[in-house]
Amino acid sequence: MIGKKVLKELAQAVGREKVFAESEYLLSYSYDATGLEYLPDAVVFAENEEDVAAVIAVCRSHGLPLVPRGAGVGYTGGALAVSGGVVLVFTRMNRILSLDRENFLAVVEPGVVTSDLQEAAEKAGLFYPPDPASLKTSTIGGNVAENAGGPRCFKYGVTGNYVLGLEAFLMNGEKVRLGAETIKNVAGYDLKSLLVGSEGTLAVVTRVTVRLLPLPPCRLLFRVDFPALEDGARFVQRVIQAHVQPAVLEFMDRSSLQAVYSYQGLALDDRLRAAVLVEVDGSPAEVAEREALLKKQLDAARPLHWQRAETFAEQEALWATRRNISPAIAKLKPKKINEDIVVPAGRIPEMVGFIDGLAAEYGLCIVLFGHFGDGNIHTNLMVDPDDAGEMSRAEVVLDKIFRRVVEFGGTISGEHGIGLSKKPFMHYQFSPVELELFRRIKKVFDPDNLLNPGKMF
Amino acid sequence: MIGKKVLKELAQAVGREKVFAESEYLLSYSYDATGLEYLPDAVVFAENEEDVAAVIAVCRSHGLPLVPRGAGVGYTGGALAVSGGVVLVFTRMNRILSLDRENFLAVVEPGVVTSDLQEAAEKAGLFYPPDPASLKTSTIGGNVAENAGGPRCFKYGVTGNYVLGLEAFLMNGEKVRLGAETIKNVAGYDLKSLLVGSEGTLAVVTRVTVRLLPLPPCRLLFRVDFPALEDGARFVQRVIQAHVQPAVLEFMDRSSLQAVYSYQGLALDDRLRAAVLVEVDGSPAEVAEREALLKKQLDAARPLHWQRAETFAEQEALWATRRNISPAIAKLKPKKINEDIVVPAGRIPEMVGFIDGLAAEYGLCIVLFGHFGDGNIHTNLMVDPDDAGEMSRAEVVLDKIFRRVVEFGGTISGEHGIGLSKKPFMHYQFSPVELELFRRIKKVFDPDNLLNPGKMF
Repeated sequence: MIGKKVLKELAQAVGREKVFAESEYLLSYSYDATGLEYLPDAVVFAENEEDVAAVIAVCRSHGLPLVPRGAGVGYTGGALAVSGGVVLVFTRMNRILSLDRENFLAVVEPGVVTSDLQEAAEKAGLFYPPDPASLKTSTIGGNVAENAGGPRCFKYGVTGNYVLGLEAFLMNGEKVRLGAETIKNVAGYDLKSLLVGSEGTLAVVTRVTVRLLPLPPCRLLFRVDFPALEDGARFVQRVIQAHVQPAVLEFMDRSSLQAVYSYQGLALDDRLRAAVLVEVDGSPAEVAEREALLKKQLDAARPLHWQRAETFAEQEALWATRRNISPAIAKLKPKKINEDIVVPAGRIPEMVGFIDGLAAEYGLCIVLFGHFGDGNIHTNLMVDPDDAGEMSRAEVVLDKIFRRVVEFGGTISGEHGIGLSKKPFMHYQFSPVELELFRRIKKVFDPDNLLNPGKMF
Repeated sequence: MIGKKVLKELAQAVGREKVFAESEYLLSYSYDATGLEYLPDAVVFAENEEDVAAVIAVCRSHGLPLVPRGAGVGYTGGALAVSGGVVLVFTRMNRILSLDRENFLAVVEPGVVTSDLQEAAEKAGLFYPPDPASLKTSTIGGNVAENAGGPRCFKYGVTGNYVLGLEAFLMNGEKVRLGAETIKNVAGYDLKSLLVGSEGTLAVVTRVTVRLLPLPPCRLLFRVDFPALEDGARFVQRVIQAHVQPAVLEFMDRSSLQAVYSYQGLALDDRLRAAVLVEVDGSPAEVAEREALLKKQLDAARPLHWQRAETFAEQEALWATRRNISPAIAKLKPKKINEDIVVPAGRIPEMVGFIDGLAAEYGLCIVLFGHFGDGNIHTNLMVDPDDAGEMSRAEVVLDKIFRRVVEFGGTISGEHGIGLSKKPFMHYQFSPVELELFRRIKKVFDPDNLLNPGKMF
């Protein structure tokens, strides 16, 4: 608990109307998509970089933790104030400062909602590709902190591939400008890339310069249904091998489909075991070429059924199934253990088969879906926290999954980051030497461990 | 000078046949493309990671500098042993360990020559895009150290965009594995990206995993000649604005062309002031579309003349002019001050005009060429070191150029890195706070400052 004196200092520093310590505010900013809750001592809404600098100064002088927060929709507790302190909310710093058609750049404040940037870019004939599932609420600042991905990242890369420059404040109060407004930049250490994905533990980002692309004029979406899980996984691989280069290659297993269909009140074909969404984009001629390549693979794969969606409305209807998976499966069991492992794409059929085998062997409900094009398998263990036996079986299965992922040259997190939830798993991927390097890097930026403490390692 | 005892230790550690201290060896590994010379005390040819670990151990125990070196073709002195010590040469660690068509990956030792990797990838129908001008001699290890670019990086990105994973040794002798074999990976701080471009000052890389793309089946090259410098610069911009998305957009000014034509013994059209190379690539239909878009811009731009090269031989003939610029201009004056500034592409006409104006105002020969698509302007001040007046005018001009570059949101180095040559210019781009961060990061990895000391800051 912080005293009235500190609250008064905060109010003096940024203005009374931006500082809240009432319990309803503390509660509103105490949780994220993990369901975990940690009450902060105060919530401050930054409106400009002066506010950020002022809050840092107060936190430093009182040794108070500072937790930057965007929309709070993260899956690993990255924005939770586990040691109390001040939650610094960026949703009011939501201006697109410039959208430069000549240089294919946008400069934005960290609180800009991802889809707002995408829409502004589209209006200018430009394209901001990263598309995390939460894009209608998530902020660019949060996306930078987690190096957010999404379906399109298979073709277009992740958030970090679009961040050219950052402005940020260090916990010593100094402002730094990292990167540049150019694609090429090899002067000095690449601290911009170090900050991307650092989960708000190194510096407080106040401005982001992102690269934009020309908007692909055409887009076609296909849904392909298979009678076996492995058939779907193999189809994904064949599409990659055939150099179709789709923008999106999404996979849904039987459990995901079952949950969504029941959520939507629809009947599901008994034979259906997996569905794949394939989106191709580009100019009309490119899209036609990619479609022809894809159709060869469709013929070879002998799916149960496939659909082609050309109009926006048709495409949205197909996407609805995919987008509803998360809310739909949440109804299957009281708790979802939500992992976002990645393996090299060629390992997907093996990995999917392995997980499916474990589910059967240990009697667990495991729902698989995700961005199979880039090997990103969202692996959801649906459990009941009151069932001790189930919980301990889940632990054994997770251990086996993480070991296999690392053996396959993969990673324990492709999108969600480490935060709180995945801290216990870091040792699967990193040696004590590597973890020590992380700690020492953290110390360079934040020697007193005030900035988003308790996360990642 | 190191004593016989240390040399003996080195020989015992890695084998006598890999350690050299004879003056002809020391001389051969004392210089790079800067023309600067610093004699090391010993040269060791690593053949495997055990050699690397052993040399690190000897250097550490004697407090000896260790300088990793690839082909030694860098432009900023990155591979020079400015404080003596051991130069650790990687040219014998030149195996492509795997080339994985299923996962679009290659795993290579750092001594692999860039073009060898490109050719091996092409044979498998795959593509490793980064193409620094020195690609026929430069090594992947050197490319990683400098985050090398090249003409194609306009469309395809730089070396760092293709490095998925690194194995490296720290100066404390510990081995680390950074990154993964996947495109998405958000576990822990992105130390892989921090190492890329760190000029061999943080760790000694022993293995590199790179991402490959499907090989674009078609390629078309155009050369377009203009009667004025600004016409050429504006054409580059129009091609970008029209979303032609060429793979390459190279620019050559009158002085570069004059030097190359005289080097090749050819006559040059009197009216010619600038030439632009445009390469479009992709599938046949994509290339046809891009060609149509380009032709609209050709019609609008009213060039003096243009050529279209379809066959490999025709294309190589056009490329020869561009590739001969560096050797050709070296004959213009005794010394070339070789800068590789970058500005946002929309600023190119302004920047080129500014430099041209300075050349006239200060009576200097400044040769401009480069990768204008990504704003990377190779700016060569051709000077005579014995002409004190010219040298001091060059200094004034450089100061003005760097200031303008930074004002424009650009960077002082797009490809060559900082090394020794650009250390004096770091303050243009970085504040004392940022430079101090670099020093503290260096200390985390190399507290005794033994690894490639004296570089960058």
